[in-house]
Amino acid sequence: MPALSNRGQAMPPSPIRKLVPFAEEAKRQGRHVYHINIGQPDIETPECMLEAFREHHLTVLPYGHSAGLWEYRDELVKYYARFDVEVSSRDIVVTTGGSEAIVFALMAVADPGDEVIIPEPFYTNYNGFAIQAGVKIRPVTCRIEDGFKLPAPEIIEAQITDRTRAIMVCSPNNPTGYVLSDEELDGLAVLARKHDLFLFADEVYREFVYDGVTARSVLTLPDLDDRAILLDSISKRYSACGARIGCIVTRNEEVIDACLRLGQARLCPPTLEQLAAARAVHTPPEYFVRVVGEYLARRDAVFEGLRSIPGALAHQPKGAFYTMVRLPVDDADDFCRWLLSEFHVNGETVMLAPANGFYATEGLGQDEVRLAFVLNVRAMRRSMEILKAGLTAYSMRD
Amino acid sequence: MPALSNRGQAMPPSPIRKLVPFAEEAKRQGRHVYHINIGQPDIETPECMLEAFREHHLTVLPYGHSAGLWEYRDELVKYYARFDVEVSSRDIVVTTGGSEAIVFALMAVADPGDEVIIPEPFYTNYNGFAIQAGVKIRPVTCRIEDGFKLPAPEIIEAQITDRTRAIMVCSPNNPTGYVLSDEELDGLAVLARKHDLFLFADEVYREFVYDGVTARSVLTLPDLDDRAILLDSISKRYSACGARIGCIVTRNEEVIDACLRLGQARLCPPTLEQLAAARAVHTPPEYFVRVVGEYLARRDAVFEGLRSIPGALAHQPKGAFYTMVRLPVDDADDFCRWLLSEFHVNGETVMLAPANGFYATEGLGQDEVRLAFVLNVRAMRRSMEILKAGLTAYSMRD
Repeated sequence: MPALSNRGQAMPPSPIRKLVPFAEEAKRQGRHVYHINIGQPDIETPECMLEAFREHHLTVLPYGHSAGLWEYRDELVKYYARFDVEVSSRDIVVTTGGSEAIVFALMAVADPGDEVIIPEPFYTNYNGFAIQAGVKIRPVTCRIEDGFKLPAPEIIEAQITDRTRAIMVCSPNNPTGYVLSDEELDGLAVLARKHDLFLFADEVYREFVYDGVTARSVLTLPDLDDRAILLDSISKRYSACGARIGCIVTRNEEVIDACLRLGQARLCPPTLEQLAAARAVHTPPEYFVRVVGEYLARRDAVFEGLRSIPGALAHQPKGAFYTMVRLPVDDADDFCRWLLSEFHVNGETVMLAPANGFYATEGLGQDEVRLAFVLNVRAMRRSMEILKAGLTAYSMRD
Repeated sequence: MPALSNRGQAMPPSPIRKLVPFAEEAKRQGRHVYHINIGQPDIETPECMLEAFREHHLTVLPYGHSAGLWEYRDELVKYYARFDVEVSSRDIVVTTGGSEAIVFALMAVADPGDEVIIPEPFYTNYNGFAIQAGVKIRPVTCRIEDGFKLPAPEIIEAQITDRTRAIMVCSPNNPTGYVLSDEELDGLAVLARKHDLFLFADEVYREFVYDGVTARSVLTLPDLDDRAILLDSISKRYSACGARIGCIVTRNEEVIDACLRLGQARLCPPTLEQLAAARAVHTPPEYFVRVVGEYLARRDAVFEGLRSIPGALAHQPKGAFYTMVRLPVDDADDFCRWLLSEFHVNGETVMLAPANGFYATEGLGQDEVRLAFVLNVRAMRRSMEILKAGLTAYSMRD
């Protein structure tokens, strides 16, 4: 049998999804599994978006422009203006999900062997994208004890080598919920200018901020037009993960041109989904007021639960809908598998994402998990009760 | 300004799409452009597929399984059985278009610097996928004079090196319309076994065959389970290019596993489109009888037109809906641009795809174009008249 490539072997299984077979087995045994492992919200997609599919008048489902339908890009221009991001439709390449936006951006600016600096813990699939692109991730560690704020600029700067092509951040952050401050963003901009780097920002959670915090876009930073690259997705914004619509936004014309050429090879993002996404831009503001309120209530329910768990450490996040939790276990991976395969409370158990896959530094995150606030308050509360009971039972197993 | 990567610079603009700005300009000037440059058929998508969008009952548009929805994969199993391809749903990874199927397959089996042998001319975007994957394409040239049949096995074998990982074919072929014979497929299988290679087959045009020919799937070849990888898409089958649904099918479990891990990084293909694609599997057979008849009539109209053009050389294809044509011009690229920017017949002109982008060997295809039978018989006939008049006018310009 011919062998896989090194790359094919190196691609990591998703730490968020690798326990799926254990969850499926638990369900086969009649158990209910609370899925707070994955960022798949139960929040309803805006009706105006769902309607767009029902009301389509296409007789042929055709290719669109490789950079995205103009009518959708024009709507995106209006959308970004609401966040003080002034761009034109020519500054946008629509992608198949935020995933493709990241892969295209990496490929456009980095060659195999080049490096990108990313604060860890980070969205675990960055690992997979980096392996696909042959790019090395150099992590800078953010600590749960510090609420996951960025380390000082000197510490980030110390990771810059002659192969570094970009710094990539995610704010509001998946998996930590941390929202970068203006000072942190300014500091990153200084480093990007000083060392001739790109600054990538994954901002897919911008709507989901709490406690009066706002998430500033990298495209509002002064004197950074050639370096700032916004990576975006509608998956979380409109609870439309299955639409697979994202985009790259930058005022750097060369990067746009390279991403367009990458886009031409794969022809186009899904057509109907773009038409629906264009409608979704007109989602009434009350939708977000309601959804943000709901996520906030869930966060608070989770933290109420966590505070009652001895030995659990977590920092209440100001954004997104995740939190990292340090648990009193040696091997969170084993604990998460055990929860699915050997534990239940009255036929119910909980699925968490082990956090080691969110760190690039070997050995970090072994005792941490990521929780997603993707179920209703009652279910989140119940999940924390199950987690608490699970930890007790796990510590007493032989 | 920080520079693009070498890869970002090397990505070729689509030779099929790079003339789009000239076409847009022609339209701005009020001209009608016959788009026979791109494989975007005007054929109607099956009503059962379009209906699936109109009738959806989702309230949340969620992620699906990274390897594709089980309900769609189960339908695909039935679909393939109609072509004597016996596979299970675990042998299938659903992808975002055939494009992603090719990228995943390349990445799974080849590392940067590895090589894949591909008969040329080939679907031009293979170039872009190879650059993304860092893989080198070693072409074996098929000649228009031979009707684009494969060269002898010895000639293909001579291209095999210690970096060769796969041979990749497309049958029925884009851009030539050639359908591989059983003897040719058997010869490729012998080479794959002898040199421990994978055999990739892009078979997205299997329904579109004429003159009594059938297109045999690589998955029907004996003793090739570990090596045969089918790359597929519904874009042409159901005239649903904008759906972006493809798949990888192979009985090699390791390859499936690697493609699943590549798939987990990008989460999933579009969800609603998969539900619609599952319905499309039940498209009534009469649909294909009608569509194949229509393509056949178009092919015949094109060749009637081509036969009246002095100096044009083409081989009437038995499959797909393209043909390569050698034209009496030195630089087909320039001619195609000129047709859009400086020529029209009563306000009408034609857009063709220059063929040099379909060859990997420098210098080949300079005097060839690809035509796609994607417009109705009247429009194809008119396009050939415009092409004929254009060639005359082009030869007389100063």
